[in-house]
Amino acid sequence: MVSKQQKQVVLKDYVRGYPKESDFELRSSDTICVLSNGSRAVLLKNLCLACDPYMRHRMSDQVSHPGTIIKSYSPGSVLVGYGVCKVIQSTHPGFQEGDFVWGLTGWEEYTVIPNPERLNKISHTGVPLSYYTGILGSYQIKATTLLHGQLYDKLEYRYDFDQGMARVRTGGIAAYVGFYNLCSPKAGETVYVSSACGGVGQLVGQFAKMMGCYVVGSASTEEKVNLSKTKFGFDDAFNYKEHDLAAALKRYFPGGIDIYFDNVGGKMLDEVIMHMKPHGRIAACGMISQYNLEEPEGIHNMFNVVVKSLEIKGFVETDFKHIYPEYLEFAIRHLQEGKLVYVEDIAEGLENASSALIGVFHGRNVGKKVVRVASG
Amino acid sequence: MVSKQQKQVVLKDYVRGYPKESDFELRSSDTICVLSNGSRAVLLKNLCLACDPYMRHRMSDQVSHPGTIIKSYSPGSVLVGYGVCKVIQSTHPGFQEGDFVWGLTGWEEYTVIPNPERLNKISHTGVPLSYYTGILGSYQIKATTLLHGQLYDKLEYRYDFDQGMARVRTGGIAAYVGFYNLCSPKAGETVYVSSACGGVGQLVGQFAKMMGCYVVGSASTEEKVNLSKTKFGFDDAFNYKEHDLAAALKRYFPGGIDIYFDNVGGKMLDEVIMHMKPHGRIAACGMISQYNLEEPEGIHNMFNVVVKSLEIKGFVETDFKHIYPEYLEFAIRHLQEGKLVYVEDIAEGLENASSALIGVFHGRNVGKKVVRVASG
Repeated sequence: MVSKQQKQVVLKDYVRGYPKESDFELRSSDTICVLSNGSRAVLLKNLCLACDPYMRHRMSDQVSHPGTIIKSYSPGSVLVGYGVCKVIQSTHPGFQEGDFVWGLTGWEEYTVIPNPERLNKISHTGVPLSYYTGILGSYQIKATTLLHGQLYDKLEYRYDFDQGMARVRTGGIAAYVGFYNLCSPKAGETVYVSSACGGVGQLVGQFAKMMGCYVVGSASTEEKVNLSKTKFGFDDAFNYKEHDLAAALKRYFPGGIDIYFDNVGGKMLDEVIMHMKPHGRIAACGMISQYNLEEPEGIHNMFNVVVKSLEIKGFVETDFKHIYPEYLEFAIRHLQEGKLVYVEDIAEGLENASSALIGVFHGRNVGKKVVRVASG
Repeated sequence: MVSKQQKQVVLKDYVRGYPKESDFELRSSDTICVLSNGSRAVLLKNLCLACDPYMRHRMSDQVSHPGTIIKSYSPGSVLVGYGVCKVIQSTHPGFQEGDFVWGLTGWEEYTVIPNPERLNKISHTGVPLSYYTGILGSYQIKATTLLHGQLYDKLEYRYDFDQGMARVRTGGIAAYVGFYNLCSPKAGETVYVSSACGGVGQLVGQFAKMMGCYVVGSASTEEKVNLSKTKFGFDDAFNYKEHDLAAALKRYFPGGIDIYFDNVGGKMLDEVIMHMKPHGRIAACGMISQYNLEEPEGIHNMFNVVVKSLEIKGFVETDFKHIYPEYLEFAIRHLQEGKLVYVEDIAEGLENASSALIGVFHGRNVGKKVVRVASG
């Protein structure tokens, strides 16, 4: 195979505000797929692609958005994100034709990875492969170098700290360490989860119930509210678009909140701070409400952090990478025993990829949004 | 002694914005000072009174300021705050005439404390007694009941959590546990302290140097900037009113900040978050920039908490009360050996008490502001 005609999803230009269909192009392209001997590369067939909220940051122009911390995509280039792939050709001794892997790949049918050391081989195949874009995935510290010349290879801090760390929430491990390690939950504590049906939130809700906590979630539709209660076992849930947030939080947490797992940020976080109990803990996992705004909303209730001895903690899964094998075993066992459920919302084909990704920012997904590019 | 003519500082009405002289009244009053047998009370002669920023919260009307968490003073009543006092009469077996104590007392010459169990007896007198309003003080969980009918006896949370906890920063123990216990400093780390000459900030700077950190402070006048460097040993300091904050932080911390000890909040906190290193820690000790505002400023850069794995922690000294005896020994020994210095800014007499307190909110104090009511 020297070259191959294939479909690719391209970001046409930097995005302002909410991403829209016209920001993306589905193009056909001849991709050169030559794996010369000694190249230690792999050619991947992409099977599933994750629609992750953090990708919004990569669509912004860093010059006009100096607060943007994650390296931007290059306009005119193929999107890059987490995916599950099949190795269809390999010149790397660590990979064989037929291996299934997950890691950063292109939003296209086939991708050449020049140095696949950082791809993760999938050994457990008793669960859907797509789960490795979410519940069973983690994330990589460094990506696989010059994939489309725009790799997510380091955070570009305002002063160029060369930390080489990328922080995305693509894995169930984020739910696991964010809840257990950062929030130190105890049985009987009260837990609030925003984006209760998202790829992370649905797991936090289930972990909280396993822990013996009282857990309430919020979501943007009645369908998701019902799913939270019936499928994920939240004690209760509400549609934050239909209720006054302060009144709802007061109703569901008359004694206050011990733990808030924040996937939303902004006004939601600001209000929740008012409802935290003394010594409450907030895991700052994501802030999807802020990603499409030109100016982030302000958090005005920070004095509560002082007077109520609150903790607000960000985290990066690599600090807990020693936990990943334990987590993987835990998650697969619980999935297979039916004690943990995981809901994905699958869009079929690269033709529907951009609208799937756009939909995430409008809360249209019910569960983790995944694009199925090919079936295997 | 049945009654005594004395001077008292009274809050005339709830304060809006910055407190001003007309909000207070110095009145003469006949105070009944009868300690009947069996009353287990003490009559105190007040020696020194602390001018603490938290007192501003108590001057606000909670009804019109629902975000106000600390119980308000009653208009028309004598101010209450931390002080150092001499017992001049006692019907309580635990207290003798001539004992020196510190704790909550009235802004007046003499105060009757009906249940003095929560007063703290001063045993080390080799340091100025006034130090027990600051560097050697801690704070009390519950106050001494109905002192002027307005005791600081519990936090009134928005939903009336009955936690019985009051959180004020009146002691050096706040600097000690806030720095050592919350921020887990390591030698060589970079530390930024706002209000570098305040009662807490000056100590954090010295603790940071003892730890082998690089520490820079900010203050509102050149006099305080110089004092920070020459007296407290900060590696550097700057006048935040004279410099662009972002540029100054970039200049003093080209590699970023590991630890921020926040006494200021608001825009300062918002900017500092941008300069934190990954895994940076912020001790949320106080937010004096916000106390006189009708609406608190918003913190817009919270997404940095997510992507840089920051921790923002409030704290309450009572969680560390087991450390207080150790701290007291440490502080007194270091003071006596000249390894720790402490600067107070003393106003003489109740006549000058309200202007001393007002001045704190304009940064007029150089060091911990204390009112000396009597000399002993």
